Amino acid sequence: MRIAELSRRTDVSTATIKYYTREGLLPAGERSAHNQTAYSDAHVARLRLVRALLGTGGLSVAAAKQVLAAIDDDDLPVGSMLGRVQSAIAQSPVPPSEASIAAVRAMLERHGWSNCGDTPGVATCAAVLDRLGELGRDDLAGMLDRYADSVLAIAEHDIAMTVADAPDRTRMAETVAVGSVLGDAAIAGLRQIAQAHVVRLHEERSEGDRA
Amino acid sequence: MRIAELSRRTDVSTATIKYYTREGLLPAGERSAHNQTAYSDAHVARLRLVRALLGTGGLSVAAAKQVLAAIDDDDLPVGSMLGRVQSAIAQSPVPPSEASIAAVRAMLERHGWSNCGDTPGVATCAAVLDRLGELGRDDLAGMLDRYADSVLAIAEHDIAMTVADAPDRTRMAETVAVGSVLGDAAIAGLRQIAQAHVVRLHEERSEGDRA
Repeated sequence: MRIAELSRRTDVSTATIKYYTREGLLPAGERSAHNQTAYSDAHVARLRLVRALLGTGGLSVAAAKQVLAAIDDDDLPVGSMLGRVQSAIAQSPVPPSEASIAAVRAMLERHGWSNCGDTPGVATCAAVLDRLGELGRDDLAGMLDRYADSVLAIAEHDIAMTVADAPDRTRMAETVAVGSVLGDAAIAGLRQIAQAHVVRLHEERSEGDRA
Repeated sequence: MRIAELSRRTDVSTATIKYYTREGLLPAGERSAHNQTAYSDAHVARLRLVRALLGTGGLSVAAAKQVLAAIDDDDLPVGSMLGRVQSAIAQSPVPPSEASIAAVRAMLERHGWSNCGDTPGVATCAAVLDRLGELGRDDLAGMLDRYADSVLAIAEHDIAMTVADAPDRTRMAETVAVGSVLGDAAIAGLRQIAQAHVVRLHEERSEGDRA
């Protein structure tokens, strides 16, 4: 298909398609005899994945590129792929302090997760502690401990979801990437809904008390 | 203090400070007699908050501006502030389809959260379902149902954290904003660590079986 049809089928403008190709997020189309560029269904699928990662997933172009490279590397075992995808997503603009890294590792120790002190999420959590410290809000640092059990239950669902796709390596890789990125967005959305739900339950209860 | 000291104390470059001021994220300093600009401790605090929202929190400049406006609006009740902060964070580049919004509302119904079908998180979750549908991965849509109970437990911690700051309105507003944005980052980081933990437990178990 020509670029106009690719644009129509994915709802991505031709200028954006060209930008993604220049940035290496999308392979170039095939040059045909009439000096036109032809795109395949594989381009449609890849463009939808790019849009999911950048748009709803909120990744930077650089992070999306690393996620796609991990998916495309057929020699990479799925376990290592999870690590590569996590490193890409966890890129922190400012490296966290040693003190906060130590605090996160102590928290992992308390929850029996001490076999994971070297994973990319440690830097993300440590950066959160750094920001809380700068804001004088160390009182909120306990969020890590308070969230831990609930997040473990989420991670168990995630791994079960990935294992369900075995032994199809390409599909598992896609599940890891899509599940990681869109899963974060889904959890953020659900958290907002659940917060509103809890507030409204409180309000209903206090209205009931007053009545 | 002069801009150089503000830059030193916050580790934000003077060019970035000027950019934030132009964008309305940071109030301008006071013009002093000698045609110099003077900044206060309030500027230090605000700049740290901006950095937390944009950097570790990953918000866009436009979203951060709306979050700050909600914090600064002293007439806004804290319940409405939560809604304003949520709308700012949830901005989706592409509006979700009606079908996905209906699917999210049906999910809320199943979990007894149907009093929240009009909250900003619904659009975020619906956008995730749209992306999964486009990718031909509707099999992953069940993540919303599977995550719901764990996320409710997280939201209960969040609201308890906010209520702990009552009746100091400014502090509660900051807790809502910081807790929403940095909380999402903390949960994403913890989820990565927990996924690695679950994978390593599986590996240890299968090694144990082989031994």
